[in-house]
Amino acid sequence: MGVSHPHRPMRDVAIVGAGLSTFGERPESAKHLFNEAVLEALGSVDRGLALKDLEEAYVGSLGFGGGQLGNLAAYMMEQAGAAGVPARRVENACASSGFALRDAYLAVASGACDVAIAGGIEKMNDLTGIHKRFWLGVSGDTEWERLAGLTFPGVYAMMASRHFHEYGTTREHLAHVAVKNHAIGAKNPKAQFRREITLEKALAGPVVAQPFTVFDCCSTTDGASAVIIASAEKARQLTDTPVWIRGSGAATDYLAVHDRKSLTRLDATVKAGRTAFGRAGLTPRDVKVAEVHDCFTIAELLAVEDLGFTEKGQGGPFTASGATSRTGQVAVNPSGGLKAKGHPLGATGTAQAVEVFLQLRGQAGARQVQGAETGLTHNVGGSGATCVVHVYSRSVSG
Amino acid sequence: MGVSHPHRPMRDVAIVGAGLSTFGERPESAKHLFNEAVLEALGSVDRGLALKDLEEAYVGSLGFGGGQLGNLAAYMMEQAGAAGVPARRVENACASSGFALRDAYLAVASGACDVAIAGGIEKMNDLTGIHKRFWLGVSGDTEWERLAGLTFPGVYAMMASRHFHEYGTTREHLAHVAVKNHAIGAKNPKAQFRREITLEKALAGPVVAQPFTVFDCCSTTDGASAVIIASAEKARQLTDTPVWIRGSGAATDYLAVHDRKSLTRLDATVKAGRTAFGRAGLTPRDVKVAEVHDCFTIAELLAVEDLGFTEKGQGGPFTASGATSRTGQVAVNPSGGLKAKGHPLGATGTAQAVEVFLQLRGQAGARQVQGAETGLTHNVGGSGATCVVHVYSRSVSG
Repeated sequence: MGVSHPHRPMRDVAIVGAGLSTFGERPESAKHLFNEAVLEALGSVDRGLALKDLEEAYVGSLGFGGGQLGNLAAYMMEQAGAAGVPARRVENACASSGFALRDAYLAVASGACDVAIAGGIEKMNDLTGIHKRFWLGVSGDTEWERLAGLTFPGVYAMMASRHFHEYGTTREHLAHVAVKNHAIGAKNPKAQFRREITLEKALAGPVVAQPFTVFDCCSTTDGASAVIIASAEKARQLTDTPVWIRGSGAATDYLAVHDRKSLTRLDATVKAGRTAFGRAGLTPRDVKVAEVHDCFTIAELLAVEDLGFTEKGQGGPFTASGATSRTGQVAVNPSGGLKAKGHPLGATGTAQAVEVFLQLRGQAGARQVQGAETGLTHNVGGSGATCVVHVYSRSVSG
Repeated sequence: MGVSHPHRPMRDVAIVGAGLSTFGERPESAKHLFNEAVLEALGSVDRGLALKDLEEAYVGSLGFGGGQLGNLAAYMMEQAGAAGVPARRVENACASSGFALRDAYLAVASGACDVAIAGGIEKMNDLTGIHKRFWLGVSGDTEWERLAGLTFPGVYAMMASRHFHEYGTTREHLAHVAVKNHAIGAKNPKAQFRREITLEKALAGPVVAQPFTVFDCCSTTDGASAVIIASAEKARQLTDTPVWIRGSGAATDYLAVHDRKSLTRLDATVKAGRTAFGRAGLTPRDVKVAEVHDCFTIAELLAVEDLGFTEKGQGGPFTASGATSRTGQVAVNPSGGLKAKGHPLGATGTAQAVEVFLQLRGQAGARQVQGAETGLTHNVGGSGATCVVHVYSRSVSG
């Protein structure tokens, strides 16, 4: 199921603009944050683009504006000044805006439109206690896990413990992910946490769920993100440096981890990655910059393994060696990742695409990865029940 | 915004299978209902199709399984036996599965896949009191309407009152919609209400919101629906009688009715209809069967006007004349519509497509509209903030 057909022709599609709100605890309204991202995205289009040029909109969100706003996609586009545009909300837990991007890409590829916007919005700090537990909890399995008391830190902690057992991964390996992502996140003006941490500090943090300390876990974040995508003809009118979406892959998996074949591999990541690389005609070795879904430190190790950047089980040593640092073999999460930049659930998928857009255009400032010609984003929902991977390149082919 | 480009080429796409659960108060689980629709849809494909043949899935839902289940698309596909398939939830209030259908259509048209499933699921009777009010209420405007106490019957009642004032429409005109839809709904074995009503009974019902009685309002319904769509090449392999999606149009509007230009016209319907007809190269006069969003009786009158079946303001007399009956100029809601078949929110959009699929293939039994060569579906979210229209035909062109 979900087999890719790399030989079926599709229209070429590119990202031509990208915008991100500042992440963190934001007292402003959901519409304010979404506007911030949309206006920055429009403003980043080199030869200009107006709200009226948007033909289709895809808005990712899990719990939206504190759960008090419905018909969210229409509302967000109305408030952005684009009332009328065909818009829908896409909801796949924390992979919501990654799938919004995928569907916007497919809409442009279909020929139905030439310019579409994909974005995401989350106001986690507006959620009341019951809603916060609810929205975070329901994205995993309900029947076997949530109602039995298993939380997200709990389920990822199980994966980490099993990874320790099978491959000799250590708490230090996990901490290296946090240290790396905080170090680079400190250079990101939009990041929620802009402070470096030491390995010692990461290891000595308050325990959340064994083997995780608080530094192994992402945070509660408000934020919004948006990217503007266009057909090849339109993209070339709008900019000399489009970022081409070379491949898109997606997959789902069983929600409950006991139904899956392995606790130390996300099959949805493996399938989505293979499909995206197959479409792109590229391999993991071609990727110089990758934004992966590090909701917990173990998740980044699983991702670098499941996407093929290193062998299964080698994520820890690979990371500890510096191979995933800004100057390593593949720069993983140069934005700071979910860990340091923050994780506003439904806004994370397109936020990852924003970073790759900046990196591939050489506009990432102090975070810039040298020689970033090809990039990847990897967005996960639940504990791996949904996954979407995109591969991007400065060149449209080859 | 959302301007159609009828001359840009797109791949031809058809519906090849369709399934519907029985609508009503269903004690079974959400997954049970969704399964019912998916299995019927697969079984309806003339030369057979298996779960493993599904390449992409779009699941529409507003409040899902009592609001207690997250990552819904992955969960529903897993429970249907299709774990792994790329799937996402599409949420646009009561237009959720209409947009799911649109996005599945665009995915196939893009060349990314050859077979996709679009469906919807709602278990309204599982919602607790607070959730029921919440999910129903939030789909309209929150800041100006919901928090001030305006309900959905209230906002549509305002539209009706204004229509009375501007065009001389009467309560009897409204009641004709209910009588017609209950009469044909009585012939639909899947309908929630299978009893005819008289004009006198409709007019004498308990008042919900002036000028509406309970017979002007749709109900609380559990149900699921699914359609299978395929590329032209694949469709011809699967059946000799595909139902071609000739055009798809969508639009949004301001959520709060005070921001709109008119209280007696849904601009989102006008725009979505024009785009769909433009793409199809067809006109309202070509349509023999239409499933429109009659959440309230006035909504059907607005729809037949805004879609161009009759002049603005003439919906009442047009309906009272029998022009929208099964044997009239255009058979409107031969399924019984939201009024009699039932309105399980997020499942309604693809349920409308199921009826048109049956009608265009001559498989609608006692509800069959003679000479149904071209059909239309019209699905609305909120009080007109989102709308999606599809035009279908037995022939791929002409």
